[in-house]
Amino acid sequence: MMGDDYAAVKAARVSYGQGLKTPERDRALIFYLMEHGHETPFEHIVFTFHVKAPLFVARQWFRHRIGSFNEISQRYTEIKEEEFYIPENVRVNVPEDRQKAVPVEDEELLEKARSLMVKSFEDSYITYKELLALGVARELARIVLPLSTYTQFYWTVNARSLMNFLNLRADSHAQWEIQQYAIAIARMFKEKCPWTYEAFTKYAYRGDLLEA
Amino acid sequence: MMGDDYAAVKAARVSYGQGLKTPERDRALIFYLMEHGHETPFEHIVFTFHVKAPLFVARQWFRHRIGSFNEISQRYTEIKEEEFYIPENVRVNVPEDRQKAVPVEDEELLEKARSLMVKSFEDSYITYKELLALGVARELARIVLPLSTYTQFYWTVNARSLMNFLNLRADSHAQWEIQQYAIAIARMFKEKCPWTYEAFTKYAYRGDLLEA
Amino acid sequence: MMGDDYAAVKAARVSYGQGLKTPERDRALIFYLMEHGHETPFEHIVFTFHVKAPLFVARQWFRHRIGSFNEISQRYTEIKEEEFYIPENVRVNVPEDRQKAVPVEDEELLEKARSLMVKSFEDSYITYKELLALGVARELARIVLPLSTYTQFYWTVNARSLMNFLNLRADSHAQWEIQQYAIAIARMFKEKCPWTYEAFTKYAYRGDLLEA
Amino acid sequence: MMGDDYAAVKAARVSYGQGLKTPERDRALIFYLMEHGHETPFEHIVFTFHVKAPLFVARQWFRHRIGSFNEISQRYTEIKEEEFYIPENVRVNVPEDRQKAVPVEDEELLEKARSLMVKSFEDSYITYKELLALGVARELARIVLPLSTYTQFYWTVNARSLMNFLNLRADSHAQWEIQQYAIAIARMFKEKCPWTYEAFTKYAYRGDLLEA
Repeated sequence: MMGDDYAAVKAARVSYGQGLKTPERDRALIFYLMEHGHETPFEHIVFTFHVKAPLFVARQWFRHRIGSFNEISQRYTEIKEEEFYIPENVRVNVPEDRQKAVPVEDEELLEKARSLMVKSFEDSYITYKELLALGVARELARIVLPLSTYTQFYWTVNARSLMNFLNLRADSHAQWEIQQYAIAIARMFKEKCPWTYEAFTKYAYRGDLLEA
Repeated sequence: MMGDDYAAVKAARVSYGQGLKTPERDRALIFYLMEHGHETPFEHIVFTFHVKAPLFVARQWFRHRIGSFNEISQRYTEIKEEEFYIPENVRVNVPEDRQKAVPVEDEELLEKARSLMVKSFEDSYITYKELLALGVARELARIVLPLSTYTQFYWTVNARSLMNFLNLRADSHAQWEIQQYAIAIARMFKEKCPWTYEAFTKYAYRGDLLEA
Repeated sequence: MMGDDYAAVKAARVSYGQGLKTPERDRALIFYLMEHGHETPFEHIVFTFHVKAPLFVARQWFRHRIGSFNEISQRYTEIKEEEFYIPENVRVNVPEDRQKAVPVEDEELLEKARSLMVKSFEDSYITYKELLALGVARELARIVLPLSTYTQFYWTVNARSLMNFLNLRADSHAQWEIQQYAIAIARMFKEKCPWTYEAFTKYAYRGDLLEA
Repeated sequence: MMGDDYAAVKAARVSYGQGLKTPERDRALIFYLMEHGHETPFEHIVFTFHVKAPLFVARQWFRHRIGSFNEISQRYTEIKEEEFYIPENVRVNVPEDRQKAVPVEDEELLEKARSLMVKSFEDSYITYKELLALGVARELARIVLPLSTYTQFYWTVNARSLMNFLNLRADSHAQWEIQQYAIAIARMFKEKCPWTYEAFTKYAYRGDLLEA
């Protein structure tokens, strides 16, 4: 990563032709910026993450355009057998709200759903290997692989865009799986930029999963 | 769409405090801009496309960050049975270049590969429906679906970014399927902005599939 | 421009695999999107403006990066004599808040300030012409010109980015001059996209100058 | 700054599920990426610069939208007397090419041009101070200040966007003053990312001022 809370302070103070002051005043400035929606100073804090996630999560992630991505290519790299996400948290839809999903409580149903998934992943993977054995190009053989297949990518993102990611993905409206990634990202963000994180959760965070 | 060849001319001429002139001079200006890499005037020509494509194509498409996407949500919408891409053009890898893939010539192998794929898509779809029947949330049931599943999206993009898309995707290094989409996009682009298209293929196009 | 309220509706409905419905439901969808911060559908509405503004306003305007600009070049085009902004609304700073400025009420002071400015613009312009007469390149001669000099540019921007512009510039914290431009932009936006405008001012507008 | 030549290598190798190898192969990969226009891996190298430049240079600089800027505010900060750029390199236009400007050779003409400029800057500054003395708000008083006035800003930019900046500004078609800044930026870039710089000048640089 590059920069920390002080990088935002310095970038903001250049507006007034000034630099760092006391920690108290620097911290207060961060809270002031966040409260008043002055977000550009936070663009000077930059992170790079190496992420491993299922394709359906990666697809949601890549919708965030302000950032840089380099992803493993399934056109050129062969997928390994164990590379599928098998959910422990299986959700069912709620009749009264079609956009909502709650965890299955029925153990039997849970196991049934999971075993259906595992079987399907295995079958798809067998077909994938059969296609490769026939000589079919990797870029084409992979189209039988499911959305649960893991991928990997590098993500470089500034703190402003990262906070926007948290607003949308560290939120109960996001799919549960990407919520978990967002919470993990938030934890690292908090550790590296404690003042910015605290000010963010206080003034600018629009989701409902993170706490100061 | 918004704008045409003349929109680029007008935007470029504002630099000199001038407007449209004769068609000959307007056309010549477009060729001059393209030859000298002055690309901003072409940002004032904007297209919206409604695209239907398999997920593995959409994933490549969404890497183009300068543009706007709205995609059908498979979290909320149920996938219909026929919604899978079944390749007619099946490629095999070439031993001497692992990044290259050429069409299968052996009819038997072609049919074998295709029937393996179709069977896999059907099985995955059956599992998808079984999971839905169990009550599993759509957002989770869909993770068994393959990368061949069709999706739909709106894509709004300016002509500069569109030309960049053509440079990378209307090129033999791109996967064959997205090449076909890129060629179709190029045809519409040529029809709507004939001078810009001609100047692009003459001076700025770095791919190897399009002709003036 | 391209698109209107219905363009946002269609882009949003693609998420559900649906199109336009009744006007009442289309309008309600726009309000729903705005209330819940779903801003991408509004990226499919695109405007091009031809703006004439003083340099100090243009400098603030060009900070908005999501959009396309083509500006008249003062390196190549000679500035005409009358091309200076002479403020009718002269503000003085308020002792208790150094970031605030209120209109001068003292007529004499107003005229004094204005005549000092006009004299300064004239002198700078005379020097500019003298430098040109000596043969000095336009790109260098212009560096004596003041920030009140008018410039012109084309601005292509989608409705989402335009609403962000209004949030920051149609607000009493912005400089008065750019407020006037923002209000004029808002008026055109309202005329072309009445539902989007109304929903914006109701749910997403963070400034304090616009009304529904 | 964040990252170096190896950051691009690692980001590129994630595509193949691999990491760093020998220095020879890592260096070769950078040359391969640059030669074939694979630019995204270079987005994971990020720089922050603190720049002091005249307004007419800053205006050109801020046109580069892929990057983050925080600038000193002349609405709130008083300009100091010595803060004007006085050119030593005065250019005259060439009759045969109106877009070209060459250094003045006539010493007398040079001094005449310079003294006209200095006088104009001084007069503008005196008016600025008079307006402030009358109580006129800084944001308005500054509109008499010339384009030669110095400003300061923080610029955070990734190596890909930085190379694009060099393509356009480290080039004889750019204004001489911004050329000097671009050359200075290039020197720092070369020091920090020697392989990337060398590969850039060999394969991707379209300007005419930099050497490997």
